Amino acid sequence: MDLAPELTRHLDRIEAGLDRHLPPAATRPGRLHEAMRYSLQAGGKRVRPVLALAAAEVFGVRDDAAVPAAVAVECLHTYSLIHDDLPCMDNDDLRRGRPTAHRQFDEATALLAGDALLTHAFALLAEAYADRPVLAHALIRELADAAGSRRLIGGQMEDLLAEKKANATAAELEFIHLNKTAAMIEAALVLGGLIGGANEDGIASLRLAGRHLGLAFQIVDDLLDATADTATLGKTAGKDAKAGKTTFVKVHGLDKSRQFAAHHTAAALAALKALPGDTRFLVALFEAMLARGK
Amino acid sequence: MDLAPELTRHLDRIEAGLDRHLPPAATRPGRLHEAMRYSLQAGGKRVRPVLALAAAEVFGVRDDAAVPAAVAVECLHTYSLIHDDLPCMDNDDLRRGRPTAHRQFDEATALLAGDALLTHAFALLAEAYADRPVLAHALIRELADAAGSRRLIGGQMEDLLAEKKANATAAELEFIHLNKTAAMIEAALVLGGLIGGANEDGIASLRLAGRHLGLAFQIVDDLLDATADTATLGKTAGKDAKAGKTTFVKVHGLDKSRQFAAHHTAAALAALKALPGDTRFLVALFEAMLARGK
Repeated sequence: MDLAPELTRHLDRIEAGLDRHLPPAATRPGRLHEAMRYSLQAGGKRVRPVLALAAAEVFGVRDDAAVPAAVAVECLHTYSLIHDDLPCMDNDDLRRGRPTAHRQFDEATALLAGDALLTHAFALLAEAYADRPVLAHALIRELADAAGSRRLIGGQMEDLLAEKKANATAAELEFIHLNKTAAMIEAALVLGGLIGGANEDGIASLRLAGRHLGLAFQIVDDLLDATADTATLGKTAGKDAKAGKTTFVKVHGLDKSRQFAAHHTAAALAALKALPGDTRFLVALFEAMLARGK
Repeated sequence: MDLAPELTRHLDRIEAGLDRHLPPAATRPGRLHEAMRYSLQAGGKRVRPVLALAAAEVFGVRDDAAVPAAVAVECLHTYSLIHDDLPCMDNDDLRRGRPTAHRQFDEATALLAGDALLTHAFALLAEAYADRPVLAHALIRELADAAGSRRLIGGQMEDLLAEKKANATAAELEFIHLNKTAAMIEAALVLGGLIGGANEDGIASLRLAGRHLGLAFQIVDDLLDATADTATLGKTAGKDAKAGKTTFVKVHGLDKSRQFAAHHTAAALAALKALPGDTRFLVALFEAMLARGK
């Protein structure tokens, strides 16, 4: 199938949703709301919200019912990037070619904008699905679990701890990627499924697809950083190795990393096959995301 | 009424609840969960969780049904303290006589522990009230709103902005205190009321009581900082003025601040009178909290 027009359709809905479901920039305090919007509107691939919308469509959601959930997922992802970029974490000056939030504003504003985006993710789910409180509760429970101390934040913490050691183990690496990367990809798909009224089997398949997609996506990222040149990559190549980052390539080498990527790609696609409904867009999207590494 | 035994009864339930409703310190990553518990267990007056439990009791909750909500409120309050203490914010080394989280651990761990406590507040509400999803949704909606960019975080941001100016206006000061202090006190009371099945009038009275209590509480704090000596206060007196903080005393002077405190105290107690049920404990607690300034 031709991915581009469908992807554009989803991206347009997401950009409109981000504008609609965030407090206006003029809301008091203006500086805080400007900073929230600055980081959210920095672009990026919008992988997670697209996954949420696409998963909902597989389960028959034809209207914009999943858009607030997609926006909530992107708010949560963006908060994690803002805090990750702070001087006490990765200390990055640039994100997607623009100054990071703490460089554009200041550190305190970036900290608070991250806090506010995290909080807004839950507020938005509670508000937008208020007429379906059972659904709102299920969405919030899923997102809070994926974003919590055992998953997203736990993965960040272990990643920091691993950087301080000479050699992280394969088990530590898996914990980091399962939680830092895969958790939110899983959650994005599951949120879409919940909105579409997926049954337990459907949710389990989405979760499995997200888990393998997340792991494959991360390994491909590590492979690209290790093998592509800076021009192809659009960012500095070899940055991970220089920073002493714990990557698949560092722990397992290139060949085994390629095998792992192929394994998780196949497993992700197999999980999609178990879904009812039309999964052609999701299959094409997964393949496009993972073909980058070849 | 004799406040002490009732207060002790609530505090015991809160300490037990904090231990029970937080992930064990050994949960991976251990350092993160240790840091979350370190800051939560730093003591403090537990004003907000006590208010949540007491409000629930006014509406007939005799069991521990409100304990998870009380713990969620304290997790949220503690996250705000951890982030507020960070070098890019108030840069405090001590909190309640112990090293702040970033001094005890490091800045990145403190940042993540704050993020994790904020996220856990929502996860806990979603989890503990999962068999009553309509209630869970209402609790989360209330807390997310109180903690969001228009209220708690908005108050923090305006407070930071006000510090940079020579003179904050009375309107700016009110925005800061209504949101930085009163929002979470309101939310604590409202959460208790929601668990007790309070009707709209009951919720409105709790919200009004919390708003006036929060404002009175903050003014009393400002008065104490300006008038008490360090020995009485248990912390460095005159710190606000030295730091250029926007306080009631700075904007309105001592006399007018005392009048404002008396006004908000009376209004808070009047709002309690509108509640059905036995409010003697809440009245005694409000009076004890606000008598500090005399």
